[in-house]
Amino acid sequence: MPALSPTLELAFELIRRPSVTPADEGCQALMCERLAAAGFNIEPMRIEEVDNFWARRGGDGPVLCFAGHTDVVPTGPLEAWQYPPFEPQIDAQGMLRGRGAADMKGSLAAMITAVERFVADHPNHQGAIAFLITSDEEGPAQHGTRAVVERLRARNERLDWCIVGEPSSTEQLGDIVKNGRRGSLGATLTVRGKQGHVAYPHLAKNPIHLAAPALAELAGEHWDSGNAYFPPTSLQISNIHAGTGATNVIPGELTCVFNFRFSTESTVESLQQRVAAILDRHGLDWHIDWALSGLPFLTQPGALLDAVAASIEAVCGIHTTPSTSGGTSDGRFIATLGTQVVELGPLNATIHQRDEHIRAADLDALSEIYYQTLVRLLAC
Amino acid sequence: MPALSPTLELAFELIRRPSVTPADEGCQALMCERLAAAGFNIEPMRIEEVDNFWARRGGDGPVLCFAGHTDVVPTGPLEAWQYPPFEPQIDAQGMLRGRGAADMKGSLAAMITAVERFVADHPNHQGAIAFLITSDEEGPAQHGTRAVVERLRARNERLDWCIVGEPSSTEQLGDIVKNGRRGSLGATLTVRGKQGHVAYPHLAKNPIHLAAPALAELAGEHWDSGNAYFPPTSLQISNIHAGTGATNVIPGELTCVFNFRFSTESTVESLQQRVAAILDRHGLDWHIDWALSGLPFLTQPGALLDAVAASIEAVCGIHTTPSTSGGTSDGRFIATLGTQVVELGPLNATIHQRDEHIRAADLDALSEIYYQTLVRLLAC
Ligand SMILES: [Zn+2]
Ligand SMILES: [Zn+2]
Repeated sequence: MPALSPTLELAFELIRRPSVTPADEGCQALMCERLAAAGFNIEPMRIEEVDNFWARRGGDGPVLCFAGHTDVVPTGPLEAWQYPPFEPQIDAQGMLRGRGAADMKGSLAAMITAVERFVADHPNHQGAIAFLITSDEEGPAQHGTRAVVERLRARNERLDWCIVGEPSSTEQLGDIVKNGRRGSLGATLTVRGKQGHVAYPHLAKNPIHLAAPALAELAGEHWDSGNAYFPPTSLQISNIHAGTGATNVIPGELTCVFNFRFSTESTVESLQQRVAAILDRHGLDWHIDWALSGLPFLTQPGALLDAVAASIEAVCGIHTTPSTSGGTSDGRFIATLGTQVVELGPLNATIHQRDEHIRAADLDALSEIYYQTLVRLLAC
Repeated sequence: MPALSPTLELAFELIRRPSVTPADEGCQALMCERLAAAGFNIEPMRIEEVDNFWARRGGDGPVLCFAGHTDVVPTGPLEAWQYPPFEPQIDAQGMLRGRGAADMKGSLAAMITAVERFVADHPNHQGAIAFLITSDEEGPAQHGTRAVVERLRARNERLDWCIVGEPSSTEQLGDIVKNGRRGSLGATLTVRGKQGHVAYPHLAKNPIHLAAPALAELAGEHWDSGNAYFPPTSLQISNIHAGTGATNVIPGELTCVFNFRFSTESTVESLQQRVAAILDRHGLDWHIDWALSGLPFLTQPGALLDAVAASIEAVCGIHTTPSTSGGTSDGRFIATLGTQVVELGPLNATIHQRDEHIRAADLDALSEIYYQTLVRLLAC
């Protein structure tokens, strides 16, 4: 086997550490050691059970932050894996195998080697480079990036640009970068009726019968048309339950859970008001517990997106496509600082699955993209 | 305490036996002893775990059968009872207290004493008198009246008229008799979709969204208008379930349970076809398991209803109202023999509840109504 590139060597070392969320297993210590050697000031931020760190190198001027997570999702049954998840290797097809290869230890390795090269080449770069790393992105995510961002906000830490290493690519490296995410708003709806016997429906109020037309309207509603950056807002009912199990009892209550993924064309308040109006119009006795998981955020074309797109074109020879589709990420927390946030990482085809893998060569290319982005934004 | 009437004395003896369904606890032996002494031919029919008996006195000609059950529903927590359920007593307000007082040991006692008087007064009555008694009406009811009726059908037993002792009265004794019951048709509906993630609804098919408009239509449908004897057919959805519990997963399947209580204006086939048409019109991928609990039956005005109504008027001074409302009863099985079936018993206000009770005097009046009905139908 030929010698590994510095990026792949570091990726191997990270994958070997079985950091199933929220464990870090020494990944951050390894990263901090490398960053300290590159002149970074390291600030560990263990919050409750979660290891995080903030690292920074440079003086005044614009700050480019790399963000990511060292935790990985559980493996599931080991016997389902053809390649042991925590024994990284490159197979005959040139694929880097192991849990976290794509999400997102490969990206972390590429960030470190890119930054090492950049500070070696440009020791007196403009502004500052930073790292915001957590070990709780795949879990509850309460004491990870969200909490670190609150500390940074409290001390007015400057953070102009952020590259999150989430695996954004779909068909080939760099084809997609995420320049925003939809908001996520959850709801637990209770519709009250009156319990009774199916033989005496006039003495009862069937909450299933009462709710069905309202649910049909919620499911069919056109919430907005999206815009140039966002697909239309979507509501999905994920759970519905009513009934005691007895076939002759009209239940007293129906509960259902639904979730909005919403564009910047709608607001939390507008969605809540429109849902209330529909439920009221159907005369329901209802209650909703709302749970806001994240506001939508958007990074408009500008310095960061331009630098990333130019670097992708130079390294991969393709025009990248900014997209806001898909689930939420820690980018939503960082964006609340007014930061331009872009997610850029390897192919996501195998994330959260057994035998997670990516093309090994893509990691070296990714490191080169990160390096060129640093050059475009911070070289003297 | 004054001496009890023969009917109340027998009611006490039956209530003392804690015959929680499907136990009989010697109730039927007591009844058979009395009926044998009155010249009945006794035929015990224990089927599986269930005690039943058939008794008959008389020769050719029309047969009037008394039907009922010796089992009672469970008491629930004993400390909730002000009067111990199996220690019958008459309280200061003249109420007979105890589990089964209303449903339906009181009626059984009234039947026995009515028949004893009638055969003493009319030893050479016309036709025949019969009893069909089970100890499994409140339970699964598989090996009770349903099974006995099949045996009677197999040997072409004649059964012209039947009085079931179910507590039919609502405000005062005899105000309501049941001259039929609606049919009961159950359904377990499965609607198949395609599981997915709420962030990618275009890759999934949400069965809740697909089913909601169809369920709204089922709940709102006008099935029929009923007729002179039956209220309109009614559909009630009693249970609905979909969802894994996770708030971000679109479930793959929705199940719901509904029940028709249907009049003679609809048939099982017509209801099944109309439900299928609605589900198909909404383009659903659906499956239903149907469960027919009972066909509707109706006893039209005739000899039995006339005799019962005249007896009630003579004893209670009121015009009775025939009704088909309410739940199902064992009458539905007996009616399949072509028998005219009427349910006539005491007030049902406290059945299946703690501190079950009826007016003690009503039982003597009920025995008199049964007696006069015997006279009207079978006296020489
Ligand atoms: Zn990730
Ligand atoms: Zn009963």
